[in-house]
Amino acid sequence: MKQNERKKRRSILDTGFSNNAENEGSRLINKDGSFNVKKSGLFFMERFSVFHWLIKMSWIRFFLFMFLGYLLINIIFASLYFGAGIEGLSGDHSLTRPDQFLEAFYFSSQTLTTVGFGYLSPISTFHSLLATFESFIGLMSFAMATGLLYGKFSKPKSGIIYSKNALIAPYKGDGKGLMIRLANAKENHLLNVKANMMISWIDKNLESSSRKYYALPLEIAMINMLPASWTIVHPIIEESPLFNLTYDELSNSEAEVILQLEAYDETYSQHVHTRTSYKYHEIVWGAKFIPILGHEGSYATLKMDDIGRYEKFDFKAE
Amino acid sequence: MKQNERKKRRSILDTGFSNNAENEGSRLINKDGSFNVKKSGLFFMERFSVFHWLIKMSWIRFFLFMFLGYLLINIIFASLYFGAGIEGLSGDHSLTRPDQFLEAFYFSSQTLTTVGFGYLSPISTFHSLLATFESFIGLMSFAMATGLLYGKFSKPKSGIIYSKNALIAPYKGDGKGLMIRLANAKENHLLNVKANMMISWIDKNLESSSRKYYALPLEIAMINMLPASWTIVHPIIEESPLFNLTYDELSNSEAEVILQLEAYDETYSQHVHTRTSYKYHEIVWGAKFIPILGHEGSYATLKMDDIGRYEKFDFKAE
Amino acid sequence: MKQNERKKRRSILDTGFSNNAENEGSRLINKDGSFNVKKSGLFFMERFSVFHWLIKMSWIRFFLFMFLGYLLINIIFASLYFGAGIEGLSGDHSLTRPDQFLEAFYFSSQTLTTVGFGYLSPISTFHSLLATFESFIGLMSFAMATGLLYGKFSKPKSGIIYSKNALIAPYKGDGKGLMIRLANAKENHLLNVKANMMISWIDKNLESSSRKYYALPLEIAMINMLPASWTIVHPIIEESPLFNLTYDELSNSEAEVILQLEAYDETYSQHVHTRTSYKYHEIVWGAKFIPILGHEGSYATLKMDDIGRYEKFDFKAE
Amino acid sequence: MKQNERKKRRSILDTGFSNNAENEGSRLINKDGSFNVKKSGLFFMERFSVFHWLIKMSWIRFFLFMFLGYLLINIIFASLYFGAGIEGLSGDHSLTRPDQFLEAFYFSSQTLTTVGFGYLSPISTFHSLLATFESFIGLMSFAMATGLLYGKFSKPKSGIIYSKNALIAPYKGDGKGLMIRLANAKENHLLNVKANMMISWIDKNLESSSRKYYALPLEIAMINMLPASWTIVHPIIEESPLFNLTYDELSNSEAEVILQLEAYDETYSQHVHTRTSYKYHEIVWGAKFIPILGHEGSYATLKMDDIGRYEKFDFKAE
Repeated sequence: MKQNERKKRRSILDTGFSNNAENEGSRLINKDGSFNVKKSGLFFMERFSVFHWLIKMSWIRFFLFMFLGYLLINIIFASLYFGAGIEGLSGDHSLTRPDQFLEAFYFSSQTLTTVGFGYLSPISTFHSLLATFESFIGLMSFAMATGLLYGKFSKPKSGIIYSKNALIAPYKGDGKGLMIRLANAKENHLLNVKANMMISWIDKNLESSSRKYYALPLEIAMINMLPASWTIVHPIIEESPLFNLTYDELSNSEAEVILQLEAYDETYSQHVHTRTSYKYHEIVWGAKFIPILGHEGSYATLKMDDIGRYEKFDFKAE
Repeated sequence: MKQNERKKRRSILDTGFSNNAENEGSRLINKDGSFNVKKSGLFFMERFSVFHWLIKMSWIRFFLFMFLGYLLINIIFASLYFGAGIEGLSGDHSLTRPDQFLEAFYFSSQTLTTVGFGYLSPISTFHSLLATFESFIGLMSFAMATGLLYGKFSKPKSGIIYSKNALIAPYKGDGKGLMIRLANAKENHLLNVKANMMISWIDKNLESSSRKYYALPLEIAMINMLPASWTIVHPIIEESPLFNLTYDELSNSEAEVILQLEAYDETYSQHVHTRTSYKYHEIVWGAKFIPILGHEGSYATLKMDDIGRYEKFDFKAE
Repeated sequence: MKQNERKKRRSILDTGFSNNAENEGSRLINKDGSFNVKKSGLFFMERFSVFHWLIKMSWIRFFLFMFLGYLLINIIFASLYFGAGIEGLSGDHSLTRPDQFLEAFYFSSQTLTTVGFGYLSPISTFHSLLATFESFIGLMSFAMATGLLYGKFSKPKSGIIYSKNALIAPYKGDGKGLMIRLANAKENHLLNVKANMMISWIDKNLESSSRKYYALPLEIAMINMLPASWTIVHPIIEESPLFNLTYDELSNSEAEVILQLEAYDETYSQHVHTRTSYKYHEIVWGAKFIPILGHEGSYATLKMDDIGRYEKFDFKAE
Repeated sequence: MKQNERKKRRSILDTGFSNNAENEGSRLINKDGSFNVKKSGLFFMERFSVFHWLIKMSWIRFFLFMFLGYLLINIIFASLYFGAGIEGLSGDHSLTRPDQFLEAFYFSSQTLTTVGFGYLSPISTFHSLLATFESFIGLMSFAMATGLLYGKFSKPKSGIIYSKNALIAPYKGDGKGLMIRLANAKENHLLNVKANMMISWIDKNLESSSRKYYALPLEIAMINMLPASWTIVHPIIEESPLFNLTYDELSNSEAEVILQLEAYDETYSQHVHTRTSYKYHEIVWGAKFIPILGHEGSYATLKMDDIGRYEKFDFKAE
């Protein structure tokens, strides 16, 4: 009874999600760890963070974006040089207008990047002053690019990979446990790895259905190092919210298991946080993970692509 | 009695503010979270931090400041080149003095930014050596600009928005609670969000009035994630310093509620701290927040501009 | 009995290594602190982190790598300029093909680094546009180099040096302790230094041999500062997993002592983590460290190269 | 008795200093917070950290160092250009050897900084290849300078100022306390400020004198914010190591009070650590700090230069 009371209070202790039960079919946490929430009612710029956007962007898109920005700035300045008269630049000029624009474009790029070959140089006061301004803009832009590149570099990107399914697996002889396996795909050393598991479901027993959250205490909630794989285990004992629950009950209540992970990345000297979730249909009832740790000479070896492989297991007394 | 004793001791445990009661009408914490304190008695430079000043500056002012610095350095070097004689630079020179100064200015900017078109080049030893020095200054300046830009970029700017008012709202049936609602306006994920609330008032019961501080324990002081909004609740139970207090008492004692928030920003891999305060007249007696979480398709939605909206509520037994 | 029970449970609490006993003869942790594990089954790029690789690289290799990259990019662009016709560049050209390629190479490097002397300038549209692109690539590359250099600079490199051997040394009169001595070789101040020791051995008493892990509680597990040397002591008392064990038992069970250290580096404003391990044959039975702290004028002095020096010690009652 | 036992054990819990009592007259911690220890026995480069050295350097010395490095590199390359023959550079050359060296120096600086005016350009293969290399060196050097400048910028420099003396001041009516006052001179907000105090003295009661360390528990060991000043108080109650000690006893035992401070700097998003120490003769017996917090309009004001001002106080019952 008291146990139950504590469980109930716990249901609101560990999450920032709402108890709103209306978005029933959907996930709370996407498989990649992002939140399934849309914010509205603020101007775009109040919600938008340029740095965040550029840092999250893939490297290829980032470079493309940078290059397009470079072209755009060049075209703007070229238009100004060209509009003010190509004779403001030194040298013998082409006869056709498009070629003259190209010359202004070359001059602009040579000023922006501070190459400054000199065969094209500003003569008029307007062109000279604009070139003074453009080279300043160029240096500031590349200073910003440097900052962004370092920001992208130095942001630790966790290489944690999770098993595709959570398993209800045999645990300590007759017992059962909810198990998720994970490993670090990257070479970075991860230290002080902490895990936190909870389950969320829609409680329809009450007059009005509402979403509830329960902590799922772990057998081991922190390890010092993650050299190999780690199987996270929630023992399904009497105190567990999952005790004596069936697949149908989980399915009917739209259950979702949420796993949060925090670790210290030695290479980046920073903490990394990842999370993932398993909807009820991603939980396999009666199965156990196939070992992926072997040995080869004096090394231990880890088969990373088998992280989610399991074999079926029959619980006799069920 | 013992309870009271503990509360009293607590009054000095949680703050670095003084017990000085003289600045009665003023705030301790400004609405934007800065401290309402002025320091004196040190030379300006002992108190001033250039980095702090530039980092806190708005982006527009920062670029303006940079550009003015760029112009200033150019003008200084141009004056030196011009003062030493324009004939120290190569090329056919203008006839008027102002145009000659402009040429020196162009040469200076082309040296500082390392564009170096070459149609203006140093001939005299003085001009050559000064140009050697100026290009060094240019590179160092832009190295500093790069550092500052990254400093501005990489400083997490919390997008936490708070309800304009704190509410005395119904809590768990008959109870009451002091409630403040907040949400993250930005797309950054905030994790491990910790809140800390206290109240400060001037205690005039003693012979000499002095400012006192009391912790206001929260129902939930930490959440794992902040995907949606969070209503922070201080239950006004018997142990609460607010128990049985009236609006007039708060008003007479210049009460101010201080809320501190700490969170881990996943995008910046850094902790962010924000704080805000509510003076007695910003606390609404008998009201509750209107829900802002809805749904749209399979997404949860959050109406950010309604973060502070509330409706009046009548406590029967008051 | 209960004691033993707690020890057993502890055996799985503190590590992310496996209980797999097959790689018997090998270390778990290499002397330099890296993990002795190989990962397989993912494509190379999924496991590889460029940043990690470049940051870990020695400075000499890093600069060599950078310079080779610089040459490579230059050769690629030179080939394009040369292939499209050397007459696309201004100036009197050499007569031999190799010299013409060299000219294209010079032009490329002057464009990539944005030197742009100008005696070689692009004339054709192709050469002009390619130069526009190359100077962009140049600036981006050096922006990346800047980020990497800062990444290498700002990564705290712990200067912790450990004694070559762990000692079973006299402790508090009649007692014994497992002792490891360490010191900070660098001038950086290390603060809040935390140590964590465990032992791992292969347990062959069971039907199937399996690797077990036991925490070795320390007399002092954290010190505020590390101005001098620190001798870490695990008291071998009745509760210790090492109590009454002999050298032969450690040798037969492939015992390995693992020491983890965490500290705050004041210079880098970051945490550093190091670890090392001692196999059974690196543990000296009956010895004690020779003091390395002396004094010279008003300074304390520390003989760093004697960090591992010990003298033999006979335990009478053994 | 048991109390005493606990105090004794505490004496080794909180420090990384030695118990060596030989350097009697000297400090353990210098007034600026550095350790009074010299390390020997390693090659210089094993102990030396270039980054640490440059980061700790004053700004003026840093820029001077950078400029000298710039000149040195220029002179080396100029010597190579000059040694290989000035005719390897384009243009009409001076007739005297020193002037020719100066020309090589100008060319070198224009290449290193990537200004590249072009009136001096490489003609020979040797000069061209060397210029290719020099411009690479230039970019890498300035990339390093950028990293160092950012490192210097972004390192939080605590502006904590301490009272010059520690006071034995009246505390809670009849009691006494060891008090130290501090404040933040800078505009940065400091949050979560933690203090830690200990005393060290040489214990000559034993046959061999040895240095002992005792924790001095604080009335308040942490405050949330540091908007104004903070007077740190160690109550001299019966459990205190200072209880009933006299000035002569402290003086004879070379007592030194060590204060460590840790805080979170909101501007730099980093933790700062400072420490200071008070030798026995810097402790004033019977005095109390004069208040420095006043008010001016609606602001609280803080007289920073009076941080250490105190007035004498007579303990009656002494």
